[in-house]
Parts: sequence; C-alpha cells; structure tokens
Amino acid sequence: MTARPFDAGDFAARMRRAGTAAAEAGLAGVLITPGPDLVYFTGYRPTAITERLTMLFLADGRDPVMIVPRLERPDAERAAGSAALDLTDWIDGDDPYAAADRLMPANGRFAVSDSAWAMHLLGLMEAASGRSYASLTQAMPMLRAVKGPDELERIAAAGAAADAAFRGILGARFAGRKETDVAADLADLLRANGHEQVDFTVVGSGPNGANPHHEAGDRTIEEGDTVVLDFGGLKDGYGSDTTRTVHVGDRVGDEVRRVHDLVREAQQTAFEAVRPGIACQDVDRAARAVITDGGYGEYFIHRVGHGIGLTTHEPPYMVEGETREVMPGMCFSIEPGVYLPGRFGVRIEDIVTVTEDGAVRHNNTPHELAIVR
Amino acid sequence: MTARPFDAGDFAARMRRAGTAAAEAGLAGVLITPGPDLVYFTGYRPTAITERLTMLFLADGRDPVMIVPRLERPDAERAAGSAALDLTDWIDGDDPYAAADRLMPANGRFAVSDSAWAMHLLGLMEAASGRSYASLTQAMPMLRAVKGPDELERIAAAGAAADAAFRGILGARFAGRKETDVAADLADLLRANGHEQVDFTVVGSGPNGANPHHEAGDRTIEEGDTVVLDFGGLKDGYGSDTTRTVHVGDRVGDEVRRVHDLVREAQQTAFEAVRPGIACQDVDRAARAVITDGGYGEYFIHRVGHGIGLTTHEPPYMVEGETREVMPGMCFSIEPGVYLPGRFGVRIEDIVTVTEDGAVRHNNTPHELAIVR
Repeated sequence: MTARPFDAGDFAARMRRAGTAAAEAGLAGVLITPGPDLVYFTGYRPTAITERLTMLFLADGRDPVMIVPRLERPDAERAAGSAALDLTDWIDGDDPYAAADRLMPANGRFAVSDSAWAMHLLGLMEAASGRSYASLTQAMPMLRAVKGPDELERIAAAGAAADAAFRGILGARFAGRKETDVAADLADLLRANGHEQVDFTVVGSGPNGANPHHEAGDRTIEEGDTVVLDFGGLKDGYGSDTTRTVHVGDRVGDEVRRVHDLVREAQQTAFEAVRPGIACQDVDRAARAVITDGGYGEYFIHRVGHGIGLTTHEPPYMVEGETREVMPGMCFSIEPGVYLPGRFGVRIEDIVTVTEDGAVRHNNTPHELAIVR
Repeated sequence: MTARPFDAGDFAARMRRAGTAAAEAGLAGVLITPGPDLVYFTGYRPTAITERLTMLFLADGRDPVMIVPRLERPDAERAAGSAALDLTDWIDGDDPYAAADRLMPANGRFAVSDSAWAMHLLGLMEAASGRSYASLTQAMPMLRAVKGPDELERIAAAGAAADAAFRGILGARFAGRKETDVAADLADLLRANGHEQVDFTVVGSGPNGANPHHEAGDRTIEEGDTVVLDFGGLKDGYGSDTTRTVHVGDRVGDEVRRVHDLVREAQQTAFEAVRPGIACQDVDRAARAVITDGGYGEYFIHRVGHGIGLTTHEPPYMVEGETREVMPGMCFSIEPGVYLPGRFGVRIEDIVTVTEDGAVRHNNTPHELAIVR
C-alpha cells in the first residue's frame, strides 16, 4: 500500500503554519534549504545539495517564495509544492545572496535549516547586517517534531514493515555467516516490505555489539554470540528504526541474560514515563535510572532517543539537558543500551508516538531475547 | 589498478600545509567538518553526517585536534589520519560547542568547511563572541583546488575510466529504449571500469537535453534525437565527469550540426585559453565569446566549469566574477553548452589539469558528433 502523495494544498498549509509559528516565536521569517525541511514544505528534492543556493523563505502574512539556480528551475517547477509558492531564480555569475537578500525583510531574527551550508549562512550574513540567525530546531523546535495525522499513518506503516523484516530475519542462518551477509538479508527484507530506501542495517555480533555505531563487518558470527540488529530506512518517505538483540543458540550466559533483562526494563520504564508535559530529558532519565541502579550506568553511553519522520534522525532528542516538553504527535525512538567493551552489547529500540495520555509503540515485536540459529 | 591508500604521513603533511596556509591568509585556524574536507585531511568519513558535532581544528604551530561524539570515537580512531592528530570527544548531554570552544584560540578569524551545518556554526558563534568566520573556499580558495601528484594520478585514471564507459555506450542501442535504460548502461559501464560510486548519469534526449540538470527519465529515445550524455562518479575516491552529445541515426539536422560545431569550438577555445595566471572567469569568457558570437549566447545558461577532486563539484569555479588566478595543479571541467527550450541541447565536457604552460585533458574521446543506433 502506497500512501496518497502530498499535494499543493498540503504543502501550502504547512508553509502557512510555519509562517504563523515563526511570528509567534518572534521571528521575522524562516529560511529553508534543501534536505528534509524543504521536502516537508514543498516536496522538492534537488538532484544534489551543492554550493548553488536554493532557499525557501517563509514569513507570516507573506506569500512563500523560493529562489533556485536558473538551471535547476525546471526541476523545481515540477515539485508538488511549487504551485503554492512564488518561484524566482538566479543565474551563474550573479550573487545569489544579494538576490536572496531582496526577498527578505532587512531586519529581525530568522530561523535557518540546521543543515544549511555554513557558506550560505555566511553569504547571507555578509549581504546584510541587520539580521540575526538561529538554527531552526533551536528557534522552532516543534516545527517538524509534532507530526500530522497523514505523517503518523506513514510512520506507523514504516514501523510495521520494519517489524516484518525482523520476523523475517529470525528465520535466517546466523552462525557461520558474516555480519555483512545478515545485513544484506535485512536490507532485502526492508525492501521486500515496502521500504524504498534502506538507511542502516547494523549487525553487531559479539564484541562488535559493544560499539553502538558499528554497522556490519567481516566478522563471522558464532554460536554463543549476542547480536545487536538495528535497522531502518524510509517507506513512503517516512522513517523506520528498530533494534532487537538476539542470541545465537540457546546457551545464554548469565550476564547476557541479566543485561538484557535490565535494558528491557529500562525500555519499558521509559515508555511508561512518556506523556505530554514531561521534559524530553525525563524520558532519558527514566531509562538511565534503571540501568544505573542495575550497576551498568557507565556502559549506557548515548542518549535514549531521537525523533523520526522524513529522516531517521531528527529533533526532538531525548537527552539530558533537553528541557522542552514532550507533546502529542511527537515521534521518537526509545533505545537504551549497555555496551561492554570487548565483550557484547545489548540495545532494544522502539519508535513511539506521544498520545494525549501516554504513548503508543510502532514497533511491536517481542522484547524477549530471541534465539536464532 | 587500485591506487596506494593515503597514510598517516600523507594526512599529516596536508594538515600541516593547511595550518601554514591559514596563517599566511591571516587566519587563526581552520574548522573542518565531515564531508570531503575531512576525508582530505584525515581519511575519516563518519557513517552519517548528523546533528552531532564532529570537527577537526587546524592551526599553524599547533597539533591538529579532532573532536567527535564519544560513541563514534571507535570509528574515528580507525581512520588513517587519526594517528596524526589528537582525538577528543564529547558525550550526549554535554554541550559540544563549549567543548569545541576550548580547543580553539578565543579570538581571530576562522575558516569553516563550506558544507558545515549552519546549526554548528551558530552554536560556535554563541559559545564565544571573539571570533569571526569565513567559508573555507572564500578564505582559502586554493586549499583543495590545487591537487598533489598523488591526486592527479587518480583523477587521470578516473577520466580514462569514464572515457572507456563512453566508448562502451556508443555500442549500445538508443532508439526505442528509455533514457533510464541507457543511464543504467552508463552506470554499469562506469562500475565495470573501476568506479566505486556513480554520481550521475544524465541522458537528455531531444527536448530533455535542453534542461542542463535533467537526469534521465521515462522518455523513449527516437531516431533523429540529439542526446546529451553526462556521467561520472568516484574511482579510488576521486571524481570523473565528462559529457558528449550524440545523435541517433545519421540524418543530422542543420541546426544541430551548427550548434554542435559551435559548442565544440567554444570548448576548444576555452581549453586553449587555460594557463597559469589568467583569472578563472577568463575561461568562462573564452567559451562564452564563441557562443555569443555564433548567436546562441542567451542559450548558454550556466558557468563553463567547476573543480573536481574528492567530489565531482567543488572550487575552483570557472564563472564570471571569479577573479582568482588559475594555478598549476588545478583540475576542473570545461563544459560549454547550448540549450534550446523544447528542442534539444548540446554540451561537451572534459576535465583538465592546469600545467606550467597550459592544460592537459583527462577526457580524450573525440569531440565530433558521434552517431549512435
């Protein structure tokens, strides 16, 4: 099942909401550059993100306007959202920052896409001195963090597809095969379950599982290994991301069992802590308290979660110091882990959506330590 | 043939040179973030470029230092260049900008990677007010633009491989097949000739050729079409990029012939204009004068060239307004084109390297209008 494509009306509504929200946040406007922000507002995805300036300007009470390099204009015109904005262009040899400057108020504070190139921001700063800038997720953290119903539907479908991939991999052979072989199986399973893009297929066996950012390597998986499987990508443009830790063969060591039980409890505790009004850092704290009390606090070396949507990694971050409130419609991961250097790692991760009185999971495969062959 | 991998000594020399060059340019240091700049200096390519700050700091008379998120530290340690720098890290929940701030002098002007995320630059600006920033290619335009002998060897090999791909595609069927089919052939040919990455395979047939940024679409190629083929990628980490315009069948219309001859003359004229000491814009002007004199000036809607190296698009740009000097060791494209909306396009592109007294081509397939089936 493929979701209905977003149309000009959807994009117009998003751009309008952003303009209003910007004004409420005391901003003179919002500068959107290629990447997920631009996809969110216009559906436009330039062939490549380059040194040539492409920028959408949104402000309350003004028509949205996008400036693009002239030779990319035909591509930009074809984007569904372009019917809802004014398109303008600049040509090689002209100063794109001077051209962009003319589209914007001369003064005030502006939010700019996090991943905008520094050279573009510096170019704008040089073109006019009356403005100040803030990163979009600092100035308007909730802009994409709270999902609409049409987005939640896709995130739920992506999660269900990732779960189907996990059920599929449980039937695969692990012992005697390389991590990269199992990773290739996972990628095939994600695609077979409707993902158009695979972003990561982590297979961390034995000691490799103790490096949270290990992807998949040449190591041959052995009987007795604990294996971290963390995989996801995009389905209908929206992200999936789930982790389960499995064990090769049923002779599970005491500490593996103990650590897995602890991580599982931490995941459940954090999940139950989620409700509108708590701080994002409280989700992290809830998981961390369980692991710290269990004696493994120093081995839980990352934040407990990150937002997900048009990308598999975006605000809101569930991390110490993030005091902003959890709100209904936010989607993020809850993924506590314990990493014992040189030995093994355990991580359990579900994507959740915040509801009016708690949260729902989009990953629903069992949290028990699954035994694989 | 695979080139010798760059080692810690190579990276140390590059980092040292950059520190010296920064001081000569009046800079207090250089901030390098993930992407081609970081690959150039350290060989380190994080799994993903994200909101988590990774940054290399280079300055004259100081040891290079790189700050990474702690959970990515094991990956960073494995990079060949890491043996030649001090590695430090920050952990989720800490302020990465405060940590980065401590590595750098409190005052002065700093160059920052063009593609550094705006949120990182803004974070650094907020952490300390005594510094000013400029984009790396504005402040030190020659940093990666002038290639070393070990790089030139790879760029030459990538060019030769792209030429082999072009010779291969001349034997393919065009008429009756979709652009995307021919594009897939081109990608296969690039890989078969040693490319580890295919970046683009433009197949612009008939009216699609008149959009310089058209990639390849569903259009079925017909007898009588003019077809722009522009393709390239990375071989041993260095870029190829070449364009030839072909014709399906030998009944070539008068205007196609005339425009092709004109573009060919423009390409040759620009090539012959290249020598150390001229301004980059003079290369553009040389090609543009030919096309303007031929009556098609308004249809040559892009700059004549861009640098190439670790990416297929980088400084120096051969564009009006770029007054910096062409120097020996620079590598860039010369790719004039004429685009007649709704009808057809013609472009001819070679990569060249500047020598002591002129330039050499890395693409050497004939410039005559090739006839395909």
